[in-house]
Amino acid sequence: MINIAIMGYGVVGSGVAEVCQMNQAIMKQRTGYQIKIKKILDIRDFPDDPFGDRITHNPDDIFSDPDISIVVETIGGTSIAYKLSVQALKAGKHLITSNKELVAAHGPELMALARKKNVNYFFEASVGGGIPIIRPLHKSLAANEIRLIAGILNGTTNYILTRMDEAGITFEQALSEAQSKGYAEQDPTEDLNGSDACRKLAILASITTGQYVDYRKIYSEGITNILSTDLLYAHSLNMKLKLISRFKLLPDHRADMIVAPMLIGRNHPIAAADDVNNAILIEGNALGEAMFYGQGAGKLPTASAVVADIISCAMHLDRVRYLSEWVIPKQEILRDHGECSVQALVRFSNGLSAAQVRQVFDVYGAKPVKAQAQNEHAWLIGIASKLTEQQLASHISSFGEQVLSRIRLY
Amino acid sequence: MINIAIMGYGVVGSGVAEVCQMNQAIMKQRTGYQIKIKKILDIRDFPDDPFGDRITHNPDDIFSDPDISIVVETIGGTSIAYKLSVQALKAGKHLITSNKELVAAHGPELMALARKKNVNYFFEASVGGGIPIIRPLHKSLAANEIRLIAGILNGTTNYILTRMDEAGITFEQALSEAQSKGYAEQDPTEDLNGSDACRKLAILASITTGQYVDYRKIYSEGITNILSTDLLYAHSLNMKLKLISRFKLLPDHRADMIVAPMLIGRNHPIAAADDVNNAILIEGNALGEAMFYGQGAGKLPTASAVVADIISCAMHLDRVRYLSEWVIPKQEILRDHGECSVQALVRFSNGLSAAQVRQVFDVYGAKPVKAQAQNEHAWLIGIASKLTEQQLASHISSFGEQVLSRIRLY
Repeated sequence: MINIAIMGYGVVGSGVAEVCQMNQAIMKQRTGYQIKIKKILDIRDFPDDPFGDRITHNPDDIFSDPDISIVVETIGGTSIAYKLSVQALKAGKHLITSNKELVAAHGPELMALARKKNVNYFFEASVGGGIPIIRPLHKSLAANEIRLIAGILNGTTNYILTRMDEAGITFEQALSEAQSKGYAEQDPTEDLNGSDACRKLAILASITTGQYVDYRKIYSEGITNILSTDLLYAHSLNMKLKLISRFKLLPDHRADMIVAPMLIGRNHPIAAADDVNNAILIEGNALGEAMFYGQGAGKLPTASAVVADIISCAMHLDRVRYLSEWVIPKQEILRDHGECSVQALVRFSNGLSAAQVRQVFDVYGAKPVKAQAQNEHAWLIGIASKLTEQQLASHISSFGEQVLSRIRLY
Repeated sequence: MINIAIMGYGVVGSGVAEVCQMNQAIMKQRTGYQIKIKKILDIRDFPDDPFGDRITHNPDDIFSDPDISIVVETIGGTSIAYKLSVQALKAGKHLITSNKELVAAHGPELMALARKKNVNYFFEASVGGGIPIIRPLHKSLAANEIRLIAGILNGTTNYILTRMDEAGITFEQALSEAQSKGYAEQDPTEDLNGSDACRKLAILASITTGQYVDYRKIYSEGITNILSTDLLYAHSLNMKLKLISRFKLLPDHRADMIVAPMLIGRNHPIAAADDVNNAILIEGNALGEAMFYGQGAGKLPTASAVVADIISCAMHLDRVRYLSEWVIPKQEILRDHGECSVQALVRFSNGLSAAQVRQVFDVYGAKPVKAQAQNEHAWLIGIASKLTEQQLASHISSFGEQVLSRIRLY
């Protein structure tokens, strides 16, 4: 028998307990052990919960219990979760987490500590919910130089953009719908401004490069400024508007990374992911392209990934598997955002003439788009020859308020 | 340093050598070892090949060489490949294969032999080419009871159906195009009649149930009888026609399995896989749905999966990982095909009236489809209440030649 403890009995933590209960026979069959939840740490009590008798408010009940070998951290955030994770590792417990904030912020330190204490530190559930992506990237795609990771890493924003597209409702209406369905948190800031996707992208990039990518350095835009008008243009171009996260390896082994709303062809496999689904496209130098698709969040899907880590850990208690250890890079791995190439749909007010647009942008390629809204005209910019982010930003700024918006093309 | 040998220097075998060469730095970084191809077994000589000097015609040069610890079998088929695989395992070599025929036909025996000799037997490349599916099913989805595996497992037939759909060409034209592009073999029988997909489905079902599923017992239809007319109906129904392989777990833990052309909604994620791509949808009781998508065949993608197995094996030389061992089931795991539910598009000649169709099929639900072809009428059958395969077959047979065709709905 293997005893585990769960720290944080919220949505994911209680999902882990539920999956362990529901699939205990499968877990026994796959690991050879019965997996028992011995303690659950939370500040609250859950008197009516089937696992209510395991609740403790004292972390030492877990750390000083020699019978508990695996600890699951589903607290979230980087304050208490960080402190307790360090304590768990120092106490020699194998640690499994769904906490992307913590992995993105303190991954290298926690991985090094795990190695020092000769225990596992697994985090499959930190990206893509139940979609297997972390382990496949480590193992199944290990034979490849990964040249591209691109996709939809945040379900909340994807739900909002899907609803704006399909139901023709406004951003505010779609957000409120997402909240009432439980797809968006009460404070959805981190989802909407791209931070959540950015952390997940940083984790995937760190795995594939073996070097820690600081998510705070990735250029990131959210979807709060997206208007229904933008979706009309997407339709007329036979495209969808998606919050895309993208890692692109450069020939000099640096990388371009971005999180931003982008227009992407309706027939592109990534675009098939609607509603709360995630889609992650991987391109390897041997593999070509492969894509992983599914529900990127939710109680049981996320718990499914945590429990897969528990199973893997249970099979490696005596021989630790360091899936990752991220070196802090000596040289910056990210290319300066201004140097990256970009193509965009730019909307101009009628105050600016087509000739004025052409005068500046014809050299990069500029193609008018059939207008969808009154009092404006829109152009695809940078479609013929290289236009950098810096050039685009500077030209746009020179037009001042006559530029109504610009949205990148995938 | 770890020495490996390749048996069979055809498309996949030479791809494995190429990937090992191209990505040797990555392989060293991930395993800690330099991986060297010491011998290549083939009946042919390759004097101008960069690996030409490793060619041997004598398998004993591999089996009796104590320096060679890992053997890759990329011969294909079940005769020589079987004999040499048994010899390799008996010689105590870890064995990695891309050979789905062999795994589907002799998997249990080879796995048992590997366990007896305490060596690994890996076969990630046998299903889905470069798409990671075997290991994710074993590991990342281990926390789930897998209730559904469904998708497109054969790239050749998917290419043909895509071309018939998009270019409006006939089956023969599409096949000849596939052959000229190298997507279909000179003798494409096993692809076209569903056998190839059937073996892959049997492998996936065996992994998830832990019991050997004999592919010869799975009901299987190919695409050789598909007509351009069928694609016209697919269009008018906003569906695509795909060769679908499907495993469905029943509440009594038996399973329904089928390989057959089916009509599937254009917006279904599986339908997004066109051309030579594969798509594999997995539904688990915790996970919900996840899908794996990518090029299901081809030299480098398949080699990428083989080399991932080499890397994993190199990291487990001293501690063997039995990913699978399939029990021969005491009771038949497959439900009788005739008992399975079915919905279908049935085309009738005008000799049969709508009233005659309704008289038989109204009880199961029958809905006329806008006719696409002259001298016939088509109906969606079985859409209201349960219709078994046996009932459908018997009713259709009672109409004789007045039934022109029937194609299942997904």
